[in-house]
Amino acid sequence: MDTLSRLEQIIAQRRDADPSQSYVASLHAKGLPQIARKLGEEGVEATIATLSGSDEELVGEAADMLFHLILALNARHIPFADVLAELERREGTSGIEEKASRSE
Amino acid sequence: MDTLSRLEQIIAQRRDADPSQSYVASLHAKGLPQIARKLGEEGVEATIATLSGSDEELVGEAADMLFHLILALNARHIPFADVLAELERREGTSGIEEKASRSE
Amino acid sequence: MDTLSRLEQIIAQRRDADPSQSYVASLHAKGLPQIARKLGEEGVEATIATLSGSDEELVGEAADMLFHLILALNARHIPFADVLAELERREGTSGIEEKASRSE
Amino acid sequence: MDTLSRLEQIIAQRRDADPSQSYVASLHAKGLPQIARKLGEEGVEATIATLSGSDEELVGEAADMLFHLILALNARHIPFADVLAELERREGTSGIEEKASRSE
Repeated sequence: MDTLSRLEQIIAQRRDADPSQSYVASLHAKGLPQIARKLGEEGVEATIATLSGSDEELVGEAADMLFHLILALNARHIPFADVLAELERREGTSGIEEKASRSE
Repeated sequence: MDTLSRLEQIIAQRRDADPSQSYVASLHAKGLPQIARKLGEEGVEATIATLSGSDEELVGEAADMLFHLILALNARHIPFADVLAELERREGTSGIEEKASRSE
Repeated sequence: MDTLSRLEQIIAQRRDADPSQSYVASLHAKGLPQIARKLGEEGVEATIATLSGSDEELVGEAADMLFHLILALNARHIPFADVLAELERREGTSGIEEKASRSE
Repeated sequence: MDTLSRLEQIIAQRRDADPSQSYVASLHAKGLPQIARKLGEEGVEATIATLSGSDEELVGEAADMLFHLILALNARHIPFADVLAELERREGTSGIEEKASRSE
């Protein structure tokens, strides 16, 4: 089982844990706006790290961003596999380039 | 070969393509601040979609965010595998929960 | 009448204009998530400009950010004067420093 | 003297204060990437508050965003008056609407 699937499973399991024991459970207890806020803040930090961080800092911020993206998807009951399928679909039907460019 | 590794490979290949033909090449031609800016903007869009988008919109924004995260890492010559290794390391040594909480 | 009050007045007047003629009206027609998204994106652009833009670029991005902040407040029917009053209040009661530090 | 000019003056004065005593000085001591990061994070928080916060929360986040925007400008030695002049210029020469629309 690969890293991101395992991460998704762990996040799903901790969702209903004791908020005082689990970071995932504590974010869920605060509600969706707080989960969205953390995702946005991690996006800002990955942005800054891309521009001016060390390699190690960028790796750490990218990991944080992925963690909170999967957490946000899980909060909305969307499997990470749906995101991978969407990336596959873009690649398969019309090329990743074209799709990405349309999303600008 | 899995979806994200293949995506990373495609992004790496298109990096030096003709900027008028490839979205990846055109972002690279504009430079790192523009790549960082797109990553940050996708972060904002994923944030909004988490809070008020449909499932389909959130899947699309999450795909955009992942695409631009891998593109930003590639621009900095950092393999996506390093990010997966960092997530593995957090899980293995002290638990994802603790690491994530420290990053707050 | 000062610049920001006049800007707020203009934004309020254009709110119900023809969306095909007015940028403010077109954003209002798209709804609050789109207004919030633009505010977030301008925040990212001001962030990038702070770090790597020219003085002229930063002035332009700061102007865009202020414009969209006042537009967002107006969309929520909140007078800009309330934000100034809040800044005054922080300064008056316990010092800007302490309040800002609490918001971290 | 108006609120934002006074705020700018206070921020300028505290810049070289003792970082252990002043929030402004402590951010300056951490450097420009940290100042840019705080600005971006306040942008995310104002975005979330626009979409799902109470009026009071939005006023607070807007105040935080303005505070950190003026702090970022000051860190780059750009007077806030330059931003107001840019907003005046857009209004005067070709209308705020057109300029804002070009910045999209």
